[in-house]
Amino acid sequence: MQDHLSQTFSALADPTRRAILARLSTGEANVSDLAQPFLGEMSLPAVTKHLQVLEKAGLITKTRKAQWRSCKINGEALKDAADWMEHYRVYWEESFDRLDAYLKTVTAKRTAEGEDQ
Amino acid sequence: MQDHLSQTFSALADPTRRAILARLSTGEANVSDLAQPFLGEMSLPAVTKHLQVLEKAGLITKTRKAQWRSCKINGEALKDAADWMEHYRVYWEESFDRLDAYLKTVTAKRTAEGEDQ
Repeated sequence: MQDHLSQTFSALADPTRRAILARLSTGEANVSDLAQPFLGEMSLPAVTKHLQVLEKAGLITKTRKAQWRSCKINGEALKDAADWMEHYRVYWEESFDRLDAYLKTVTAKRTAEGEDQ
Repeated sequence: MQDHLSQTFSALADPTRRAILARLSTGEANVSDLAQPFLGEMSLPAVTKHLQVLEKAGLITKTRKAQWRSCKINGEALKDAADWMEHYRVYWEESFDRLDAYLKTVTAKRTAEGEDQ
């Protein structure tokens, strides 16, 4: 059995599932509305399978509204993944710091060259 | 072929690979040092395979230092994943806001009940 974080990252490792989350970020939607944009390239059961992966990873929850089953984003699973990632923030900020330092050196060099002329 | 972001999330969807990144967050390391803690549960080629997945996803880079191949974290691939996640921050903050609102209601109710006594 996959651990919770692996399940979350695994669920996010698919462009269709991320597109479904992007759609849900504009508001709750039922399964057929969610499936609509994908039906040209895949079957309804294939979309349903993607929704099941998202639901199993805790990234979406299904609620029953009258006769409709509505899907919505569940932020907590995303928070766990974001928290894990936060620990590594220093690495990408460091690479931007290096770029920043490099750009400053280049700019200073050009300014000095300009002054020499 | 997997898109870049799917490749990153897929590489992160494994506890061994996340443990390798955690180890590398304490500093650069060569392959045999990195493999050491895992050799009780898996073979060296299995660890090497995990390193290849991380390298292919751009999460680590290998550099040659004298006769050693050293691995280090590459922050940029993580930044892309964190940027994607940032878009959904509102969802987990919203769930904490709801918890916060609930706790305030409970506290207010208890205070009121205390005053009634």
